[in-house]
Amino acid sequence: MLKRTYDTQVCSIASALELVGERWSLLVLRNVFLGVRRFDDIQRNLGIARNVLRDRLALLVDEGILKRVRYQERPERFEYRLTDKGRDLWPVLHALMTWGDEYVAGHGNEPTIVEHRDCGGRVDARRMCDRCGEVVDFVDVAAKPGPGAGPRHPLLRTA
Amino acid sequence: MLKRTYDTQVCSIASALELVGERWSLLVLRNVFLGVRRFDDIQRNLGIARNVLRDRLALLVDEGILKRVRYQERPERFEYRLTDKGRDLWPVLHALMTWGDEYVAGHGNEPTIVEHRDCGGRVDARRMCDRCGEVVDFVDVAAKPGPGAGPRHPLLRTA
Repeated sequence: MLKRTYDTQVCSIASALELVGERWSLLVLRNVFLGVRRFDDIQRNLGIARNVLRDRLALLVDEGILKRVRYQERPERFEYRLTDKGRDLWPVLHALMTWGDEYVAGHGNEPTIVEHRDCGGRVDARRMCDRCGEVVDFVDVAAKPGPGAGPRHPLLRTA
Repeated sequence: MLKRTYDTQVCSIASALELVGERWSLLVLRNVFLGVRRFDDIQRNLGIARNVLRDRLALLVDEGILKRVRYQERPERFEYRLTDKGRDLWPVLHALMTWGDEYVAGHGNEPTIVEHRDCGGRVDARRMCDRCGEVVDFVDVAAKPGPGAGPRHPLLRTA
């Protein structure tokens, strides 16, 4: 059951935070966006308690942001994939990343680079390609470790 | 002192969440963006404990996201204003709002409408005006209560 922290707030920012504002939720989603989709892999990457991860995943599935998909029959194994509602959170993650790149990592030290698949240009703060000018969505981009990537970068650990 | 929750994560999303991911922080910032800048007004609007609000504001000031500005001399009174670093969080709030409008409030029931000051067009998910096509920044927009605004909407309470 979801704790309605921001119940008194009639506001779409508060509503969004009710669903994805719990500690770790956005980082769980970041991992799924980067292709880290299985419980043990997410748990290992984030280093969080298994019960916390279980809670967060259950909430994200209940809210229709992630779906549980079977990838193996015997024994049965599931992974987590984004629904359309989940995929539409990409702008939130991209905005947080852009700000963190600017104010914490600093230019030239970005942990992750997001490129337009078609032309290799960088995706700017408005999710447009800085080379060809195209408006891009999540499916049009590829993320790769940047100059500031550390050994725990999800893309390095899955490679 | 800031608790480094996501310390093991070399990632600009995690870095950003270290600074603004605490419960209530983004809603405090939303209020300042909407012009609710004084401690008592923010406290009343959010209905949170005064010590929690004090902690959040202190952290946001320490991190250079808000600044404390004196608006009255006798007795001394201060309000909170956004720094450039704080203003650059607008894309994060706008992305959360856009997603909440779509998936929680629903079209036609948006609590807040964000318009381009120059032409009155709506600001789209890429922060461009849907009428004149201009790329807009926070200073170019005006927020007003939308069809889904409730009585606690910050813009109604300050009006």
